[in-house]
Amino acid sequence: MISKKAKLGTEPYKGVRDFYPEDMFIQNHIQAIWRKTAESYGYEEFGASILEPSELYRSKTSEEIVNEQTYSFLDRGDREVTLRPEMTPTIARMVAAKKQELIFPLRWFSIPNLFRYEKPQRGRLREHWQFNADIFGADGKESDLEIISLARQTLLNFGAKENDFEIKINNRKIMSYILRSIFELDEDNARRVSRLIDKKEKMSDKEFSDEAQNIFGARTSQFIHVLESKDLDTVTMNIRKGDEEIVGIVEIRELLEALKEMGVTNAFFSPTLMRGFDYYTGMVFEIYDKDSANKRALFGGGRYDDLLTVFGEERIRAAGFGMGDVTARDFIETHGLLPEYAPACDLYIASIGQEQKGPIRSLSEDLRQKGLRVVSDVSDKRIQDKLKKADRKKYPFVLIVGADEVKTGKYKIKNMKTGEEIECRNEEIADKLLVDSQ
Amino acid sequence: MISKKAKLGTEPYKGVRDFYPEDMFIQNHIQAIWRKTAESYGYEEFGASILEPSELYRSKTSEEIVNEQTYSFLDRGDREVTLRPEMTPTIARMVAAKKQELIFPLRWFSIPNLFRYEKPQRGRLREHWQFNADIFGADGKESDLEIISLARQTLLNFGAKENDFEIKINNRKIMSYILRSIFELDEDNARRVSRLIDKKEKMSDKEFSDEAQNIFGARTSQFIHVLESKDLDTVTMNIRKGDEEIVGIVEIRELLEALKEMGVTNAFFSPTLMRGFDYYTGMVFEIYDKDSANKRALFGGGRYDDLLTVFGEERIRAAGFGMGDVTARDFIETHGLLPEYAPACDLYIASIGQEQKGPIRSLSEDLRQKGLRVVSDVSDKRIQDKLKKADRKKYPFVLIVGADEVKTGKYKIKNMKTGEEIECRNEEIADKLLVDSQ
Repeated sequence: MISKKAKLGTEPYKGVRDFYPEDMFIQNHIQAIWRKTAESYGYEEFGASILEPSELYRSKTSEEIVNEQTYSFLDRGDREVTLRPEMTPTIARMVAAKKQELIFPLRWFSIPNLFRYEKPQRGRLREHWQFNADIFGADGKESDLEIISLARQTLLNFGAKENDFEIKINNRKIMSYILRSIFELDEDNARRVSRLIDKKEKMSDKEFSDEAQNIFGARTSQFIHVLESKDLDTVTMNIRKGDEEIVGIVEIRELLEALKEMGVTNAFFSPTLMRGFDYYTGMVFEIYDKDSANKRALFGGGRYDDLLTVFGEERIRAAGFGMGDVTARDFIETHGLLPEYAPACDLYIASIGQEQKGPIRSLSEDLRQKGLRVVSDVSDKRIQDKLKKADRKKYPFVLIVGADEVKTGKYKIKNMKTGEEIECRNEEIADKLLVDSQ
Repeated sequence: MISKKAKLGTEPYKGVRDFYPEDMFIQNHIQAIWRKTAESYGYEEFGASILEPSELYRSKTSEEIVNEQTYSFLDRGDREVTLRPEMTPTIARMVAAKKQELIFPLRWFSIPNLFRYEKPQRGRLREHWQFNADIFGADGKESDLEIISLARQTLLNFGAKENDFEIKINNRKIMSYILRSIFELDEDNARRVSRLIDKKEKMSDKEFSDEAQNIFGARTSQFIHVLESKDLDTVTMNIRKGDEEIVGIVEIRELLEALKEMGVTNAFFSPTLMRGFDYYTGMVFEIYDKDSANKRALFGGGRYDDLLTVFGEERIRAAGFGMGDVTARDFIETHGLLPEYAPACDLYIASIGQEQKGPIRSLSEDLRQKGLRVVSDVSDKRIQDKLKKADRKKYPFVLIVGADEVKTGKYKIKNMKTGEEIECRNEEIADKLLVDSQ
């Protein structure tokens, strides 16, 4: 029995969302496009629990993140457990676990929900869903190209035009070479610079230049000049001839060329693109919304060939990206690409009178077997009330069944949008509506 | 950079599952049948976060369950949060929150993952997925019937036959009346009996009878006689004439009759069916696997008209059920209904030589636009190795592209099951394979 003492609140937990059917409709639309796009490239879906041993994140993320930005706690058996904040460590764990049995290359995708404990704000919630696509064990250049194509195609499949977004591409090896070999920074300072570049957009030029001064001293303006060049040749002019292969310049040139050949007109080299400092080892990319109302990085990814080494496995070529549902929804909303809501119902059958219950149940079952989504209402309510509700619920077609209809087997189906009536016998209903609903 | 100091384990967290593509394939099959069945009845999908305020469960579940069987912890802001152990409190919260705006009746379903902290064992894991279908605010008798029909249809849509399972039906009001009015038990003792009946199957007759003795004394054998009667008339023969309406006998008779009229042959009255003691207020049902290898309750549900009262809302008629993925998988496995694994790929395109990269990329993009799932492999590996992998990966069709094919635009597609080769021009490929893959 339910205790009636306390009156409970109806709010969800802070920073997470309830999905009422209208929201779920959009959520399902987004996930369907993700799934369809990934499968069109032959990617196979995998999944895992949201519960992971905390140590999985300690190894490759800083202690700070695990301690302050994740949901981590001790379970009743004193195991440290974390609600996964990202999917990449999980895929690495799963690939490492069955490396001997799996047939490479792997083309895998997943649509996990992820968790982070931070202040909720626009585009950042405590739980969100993310589309992840990864390729393991394929030729490096080809998989960089495939991952970027797949990411781009996802946006096109939402109905976006190439002009709605742009793809910024960089290679970790270039900046790493520039910082270490040209500016002769040690590992600590190189890392400081990477972090600094990563937050450049949020700082004034003066603030950025002051912080850079602490690291580069007299060479600060030379460094800023490199960062500001949009042109691959300018950025790389100081690289020694023989080193071009090593530092990824050949890779990035080939990649940009192949994209151009495929007719991609919105991909550019971007020397300031860093994407944090963790697992990336080569190509990195981000996709930006070009609409001024939503101008920001939508999502990105890159190459991470070292991912399996923490499990004691050899390096394996890998690239991938992640795209969140919150930014995806903002993007399609900004560009007028949200689908119009339609309830999961093709036909609403309403009875007049008491005698029609049995026949309506049989008819409904029959139509469901034929593939129609049927709501049947044999309640004692007045027919006017039933019709009013069907209209408010946006049911597309309505069939009213009274004694006459049952006797004659002839039905009139009303199209609720046009008001038009279709007359047919019961065995014709499914065919008529299945055509109409397409 | 990844720290290489510690070698991490690759096991998932205790009691949860990794879904490799072959497992995910089955998981997606199960969820697709759930979704399709619910939508065929016009049910709309909703969702919510797995994180819920702990108080949501305290109000209607015992403190013991929240404290010992859930994942509950304090977040960094000192909020008590629980990973949802079931979906019913969440749907009640969401319906209560928007009761004024929603258009009743609601037909809602969801496929949440749920969590419980207990010893993992066959059929019971720490995280599982569950199909939940609920109807709110409809005529009581009709929605009891609809919920049972929907549950039954779900199993039929998996390919099960009516004879593979049986539906046991009871009504909480009957047992409640028998215990209180006939055996004159107080609330505490009535609750003790309900719990006792619930675990009857796990006890010997002697153990059961001994415990019953403590409550019923001299009337123990009379009580056991009631429990053992399979027949509605015997169980209810002592009920006073005028009380039949109140205690649900009319409801259950009409329900069984309507099911029979619909041609359902495997639904029975079962006086010992209790389903715990919480929110149920009327009809309860369970579906049992009849196969001796898996003989147990698969899932169940019932009527809970008081669900919204904890939120200070008026009672509202409601019924629903939940079906778990672990038992669903056991069921379809036991009855030979598991689908055969097929990778998410219709065509594998392999290059011979270096010059075909560009043309293969264009062809692949074109075929994807036409709806094919294409894996393209333009790596430098030997063609024999590519074919061997395609075979091991179970790709159904293979297209080898060399210089000749690019020059002439004529392709040979190999059916990997039959060995047969289809000759066609590139513009014919999609049509041929889309027909073939159906």
